[in-house]
Order: sequence, then C-alpha cells, then structure tokens
Amino acid sequence: MTPEDMLDVAVEEARKGLSEGGIPIGAALFSRDGVLLGSGHNRRVQDDDPSVHGETDAFRAAGRQRNYRSTIMVTTLSPCWYCSGLVRQFNIGAIVVGEAKTFSGGHDWLAENGVDVTVLSDERCIQMMTDFIEARPELWLEDIGE
Amino acid sequence: MTPEDMLDVAVEEARKGLSEGGIPIGAALFSRDGVLLGSGHNRRVQDDDPSVHGETDAFRAAGRQRNYRSTIMVTTLSPCWYCSGLVRQFNIGAIVVGEAKTFSGGHDWLAENGVDVTVLSDERCIQMMTDFIEARPELWLEDIGE
Repeated sequence: MTPEDMLDVAVEEARKGLSEGGIPIGAALFSRDGVLLGSGHNRRVQDDDPSVHGETDAFRAAGRQRNYRSTIMVTTLSPCWYCSGLVRQFNIGAIVVGEAKTFSGGHDWLAENGVDVTVLSDERCIQMMTDFIEARPELWLEDIGE
Repeated sequence: MTPEDMLDVAVEEARKGLSEGGIPIGAALFSRDGVLLGSGHNRRVQDDDPSVHGETDAFRAAGRQRNYRSTIMVTTLSPCWYCSGLVRQFNIGAIVVGEAKTFSGGHDWLAENGVDVTVLSDERCIQMMTDFIEARPELWLEDIGE
C-alpha cells in the first residue's frame, strides 16, 4: 500500500466531515502492512467537542493498542501541536501528511524526534482546506486556537 | 485562588479515576480569575479510550472556548507530549503541575514556548502515582506509549 493509497482513506474522512458541516480534516491509522486500524475526522462542530481532531479521532477509533511503533498515521493536513504531541508520545513510527501548504504544524519536530515523515502535496487536500479557510475563517482559527 | 487550591480540584478528579479502576491523573481548566471551566480525568480504562488523558478530558469538559490565553490548566502530573501539545496549540496561558517526580513530560518545552509554568511537589500527587505505577506498571506504560 502506497502513502497515496493510505491518504485516500483520510481524504474520504475529511469529505465526510465536510458533508456533516464540519472541518474537513481526516486521518487514519494503519499497521505497517497496510491494515486499517481506525479512521476518523475532526468533530469540533458535529460533537461540539474541541478535543477531537482528525488524528485523535483516528487514534481513538483504533482502540487500545499495546505498541504503535510499527503504525502509520495518515492525515490530510500537517498535524497541529496537539496531534504532533499524540504521535510523539505514543511513539507512532511514521506519519504521512497530505499537505503542509495551507497549515504547517509539528511535522518537522516529529522528524527531528525520530518519526518517519512523508509530506505529500495532494491537490485534493490543498483545495479542500483552501476552500474551507476561505469560507469559514473564524471556525478554522478557533480550531487551531488563534 | 492559589495554584494549590486549583490543584485540589485536579486531585479530586484523579481520586475519582482511581476509584473507578482507572489511571489516577486528573486535571482542571480555570479562567484567570479562578472560575472552573471544566475538569476531568484519564479514561483509558473506564471508556476503553486511549485518547482521553486527564488534560484532554478537562479541555473537552470546558467546551468550545474562543480563546484560551487567559486560562490555566491544572494537572496532577507533568503533561505528556500529547497534553503538552494541547496546551501549546490552543495557547493556554498557564499550567500548574502537581508533580514532575514520577514522570516528566513537556512542561519545560511549554515554558520555552511562552507558557507560564508552575511545578509543585504535591505529596498527594507523588504518592498516588508512585502507588499506581507500582501496582499497575503495564497499564501505566500503555498510557504513555512505552
């Protein structure tokens, strides 16, 4: 399974979030051999819950795992500090980022701390976030604490 | 309200978590003038949910806030990278840590990044975690991804 294949699952989650009236950021946690462990999307609007970003939702959906070293977190957007902290604390081995153009979070910090980081420049992800930020700037700034 | 007064709320949450069979880490989010916005505790065991640490539970309980700059996160234990990332991303202005003896997470990193950090050495917090780590080492290591 390629990073692009895994990203497709995260993009699907982001689109689902958008269709629910939410923030279009999706994520998925895979095992090294490409088994989907869990996927999810930002739920700030839908659940009125500021603690559920795409990555935390995917992490939660994967349930309690004893070790994350061989797992891969795939996300449509560069992870914010909250989600970067999640990846570092749980020693998630690798992360695939759909794009880091509309927002750049902690992916360089993760690379410095031993995480295998792949940053794509996926046009679907860039377009989705560009449109969203333009349409709902106040909601986007709320989601990143600015 | 002193840091110690605010810590009392987090300690109460940690004790509640312990009484439920969970990991005894509690937290609370206060406004600068001492109003409790939300409190919570680690729910890994109770909800079978690895994404709910004490700080994230308190953050969730506080609901959607437009600005966290004047808020104070109080936690019984030094925040792990996941919870440190939460504090940094949402620009939570200050953090009060019950103890950093049994575990040291990202509180120095937060101080370097402009968060007002107070580390106490609360005997109740130290004893609670020391006893817990001795009694349930595998559960503790699971919770910090080791």
